Amino acid sequence: MSKSLPTRSENYSEWYNELVKRANLAENSAVRGCMVIKPYGYTIWENMQRALDDMFKATGHTNAYFPLFIPKSYLSKEASHVEGFAKECAVVTHYRLKNAPDGSGVTVDPAAKLEEELIVRPTSETVIWSTYKNWIQSYRDLPLLINQWANVVRWEMRTRLFLRTAEFLWQEGHTAHATPAEAIAETEQMLEVYATFAEEWMALPVLKGIKTPNERFAGAVETYCIEALMQDGKALQAGTSHFLGQNFAKAFEVTFQNKEGKLEHVWGTSWGVSTRLMGALIMGHSDDQGLVLPPKLAPIQVVIVPIFRNEEQLDQLTEQIKPLISDLRAKGIRVKYDSSDANKPGWKFAEYELQGVPVRLGMGMRDLENNTAEIARRDTQTKETRSREGIVTHILDLLDEIQRNLFTKALNFREANTHRVDSYEDFKEKLETQGGFLLAHWDGTTETEEKIKEETKATIRCIPLDAQEEEGVCIYSGKPSSRRVVFARAY
Amino acid sequence: MSKSLPTRSENYSEWYNELVKRANLAENSAVRGCMVIKPYGYTIWENMQRALDDMFKATGHTNAYFPLFIPKSYLSKEASHVEGFAKECAVVTHYRLKNAPDGSGVTVDPAAKLEEELIVRPTSETVIWSTYKNWIQSYRDLPLLINQWANVVRWEMRTRLFLRTAEFLWQEGHTAHATPAEAIAETEQMLEVYATFAEEWMALPVLKGIKTPNERFAGAVETYCIEALMQDGKALQAGTSHFLGQNFAKAFEVTFQNKEGKLEHVWGTSWGVSTRLMGALIMGHSDDQGLVLPPKLAPIQVVIVPIFRNEEQLDQLTEQIKPLISDLRAKGIRVKYDSSDANKPGWKFAEYELQGVPVRLGMGMRDLENNTAEIARRDTQTKETRSREGIVTHILDLLDEIQRNLFTKALNFREANTHRVDSYEDFKEKLETQGGFLLAHWDGTTETEEKIKEETKATIRCIPLDAQEEEGVCIYSGKPSSRRVVFARAY
Ligand SMILES: [Zn+2]
Ligand SMILES: [Zn+2]
Repeated sequence: MSKSLPTRSENYSEWYNELVKRANLAENSAVRGCMVIKPYGYTIWENMQRALDDMFKATGHTNAYFPLFIPKSYLSKEASHVEGFAKECAVVTHYRLKNAPDGSGVTVDPAAKLEEELIVRPTSETVIWSTYKNWIQSYRDLPLLINQWANVVRWEMRTRLFLRTAEFLWQEGHTAHATPAEAIAETEQMLEVYATFAEEWMALPVLKGIKTPNERFAGAVETYCIEALMQDGKALQAGTSHFLGQNFAKAFEVTFQNKEGKLEHVWGTSWGVSTRLMGALIMGHSDDQGLVLPPKLAPIQVVIVPIFRNEEQLDQLTEQIKPLISDLRAKGIRVKYDSSDANKPGWKFAEYELQGVPVRLGMGMRDLENNTAEIARRDTQTKETRSREGIVTHILDLLDEIQRNLFTKALNFREANTHRVDSYEDFKEKLETQGGFLLAHWDGTTETEEKIKEETKATIRCIPLDAQEEEGVCIYSGKPSSRRVVFARAY
Repeated sequence: MSKSLPTRSENYSEWYNELVKRANLAENSAVRGCMVIKPYGYTIWENMQRALDDMFKATGHTNAYFPLFIPKSYLSKEASHVEGFAKECAVVTHYRLKNAPDGSGVTVDPAAKLEEELIVRPTSETVIWSTYKNWIQSYRDLPLLINQWANVVRWEMRTRLFLRTAEFLWQEGHTAHATPAEAIAETEQMLEVYATFAEEWMALPVLKGIKTPNERFAGAVETYCIEALMQDGKALQAGTSHFLGQNFAKAFEVTFQNKEGKLEHVWGTSWGVSTRLMGALIMGHSDDQGLVLPPKLAPIQVVIVPIFRNEEQLDQLTEQIKPLISDLRAKGIRVKYDSSDANKPGWKFAEYELQGVPVRLGMGMRDLENNTAEIARRDTQTKETRSREGIVTHILDLLDEIQRNLFTKALNFREANTHRVDSYEDFKEKLETQGGFLLAHWDGTTETEEKIKEETKATIRCIPLDAQEEEGVCIYSGKPSSRRVVFARAY
């Protein structure tokens, strides 16, 4: 930690990029658009994975694994899917290299050309539905509730660490059902799982809604989403859950015999969240001093820094701190003890602040005498000296309190940055001056949606699930509208 | 479960293929050489991952993630590495598709050709060492102890589910150290971790040894391995751990300032196990009735099957069984209760036998009266009727007993199939009639090794770490040798 971060108000975008690098979360690799997720960043992702995976299993899903490669012809089988995904993707055309004749290295062997090119999966509906065809014969085989954790590739032209990368990590759930009602219930259930995860683990409040036809997943009948608001007033789509109707079942001829013995196409869903959530987590809570992490996802929840002048003092401190560490670990708390003498306490304090460690304990010789410790919270940047009597319980409570506080702060921010607007002038002015979620009437046409996007860069994030019926007129066209939708500029 | 499996003695290879499919472990996908790992098979893999990951973390490693794609030029930087890996690999040459002019689907867009082709990683040394270059400056940055869980691709021509597939899942550890001694200690430590996992979790005894120069990992100074023996007398390499010396550090110019302020190249290791372990697990223990799984890795450890004529009987049974399930789950046991009326108990018994569930509990109306249950073990195919008094403790003990028994059985098998041979005639005869591990003298030359391989298909599996000094003569050349090495035909 040599120099300080750019501030958010100075340059939000630079602040984010620098923070991701300095907090050791991720960095760009030599391959354009592909990132390296560094150990500290990956540990946060692992904590996310564990929590989500437990929730998927608790709702009856199991994991499986499907191939990385998709035959090119599969992409064309579902008409709108190919429009959405076939365009920017990594294409494998050969399966062998050979020594370059000029001795300069290796070169592609032209003799090893694939008959049919393979696409590195941008999403797996096609390869999975082609497999489901053989797994489903009867209503007894349904529902089929499968998830996979995988890497996917979409050849993005402008990339940003976590937010938009050519390769990213995600989970994709793919389920098959006997009835549309069951498939819709699954779609809604998984949206609920994502919203619970965002709010209870990431401490980020989210709007739940459905996408307009224009923003729908390529191949879906209905796309549900959760939308979070970042500190710069831009929205971030944090997860989607799609009701696929019978689209993929028809494209891949997946049928089942129902209880009456008749053949029907099955009903599908798919749903996913990705390492993009890391971007939302970082931007949702962090400040000009660095990362701010909700305790439930923090790799280190409590760091303990002894303050000493010599080895003898360190030994005395360590003797008192060791049982405290054991007690905390016994309660399931992730603790780091930093007794290295390579850096001064002040340097360490700044470093753990940068890394977003929720609670920091400092202990020096006076604390030994007084049976106290200094406790600092990352979220409020406050500290107090406290008796070590009952300190484990205090820390447990404090971690809960920090988790709640981060959520409340983010919720207050969202509420302060959500506005009902009734004219296009007001809409444009709010977008320019403060951003945020704008609740406005819209005439329901793709034409108006795209005009507004062209003119203002704002998109319809969703039609909220809890939107009230309300008569009004479209801010753009003046045509009638029966409910407000949520506009924002977005990541 | 309609017809029975081929038997091992009839056709071992067919038995394996059929077992993998019928027990719902994996199947071939539409992409040549790429498999679909089905939910039941994937759950076993997840159990393996969890155990290994805990062991990696307990030895100080953290996970990270590196890109799927490797620039073609990287492969050429380490001379022997490119020889070993550049040949059969998936090459990405384009990044876009477009609609075919004739409306037949999509076609590769010739305008979207990459300047430098990308290789789908066959292993990640090159991309990781190119990254480590920026992460390592001083001895304070060492050791760097990182692992990644990932998919890799090697374009194999003849593939078999789990044993050899074009895409497979694995973990690859990549570490960097200040001294050769430290790097060698790491290499040996990870071999020990693998051996412990194989023996204590998979219940498979393994030989620990080093590879001959000819069988070394491309780019390594020394390759350590564990070798298991399958029921058909063929060996299977179950894990490797490589001491890389300074080879990759020199190829990617990774240096550090040592405590004396001088620049040195760092010392490296890499180590990996893959979904190939699934093949070893299946072939190591299973029988003609189906899968046999060690309890520690079994997705279902105990299945409970109620035997009833009508719903009233089922209700009575369920009332007694429910608290038993709770008690077992409270002890951390993975229990399945199969009360479906779609299939008869006999069908279920055969099905769970096929799936390798270690313990099966049957309970009928007479058991209700007598407070008993029928307990069947998969490994010995024995059963007994037992009082339900203390049954939870009994089941816990039984699971331990089964885990131990599988290991002992495999160890006895290996001992019965390990032979010291002192003539080439005897060597060839043993290979033909029974296979197994053959301990023989070898003159230490690659020439002899390759001749023996050509003539007998047997390879040197390893030079055992615990090999005794023993004067002798090479079975092939008659030249002097100072220790026996392990030959076998292998997967
Ligand atoms: Zn059809
Ligand atoms: Zn050098």
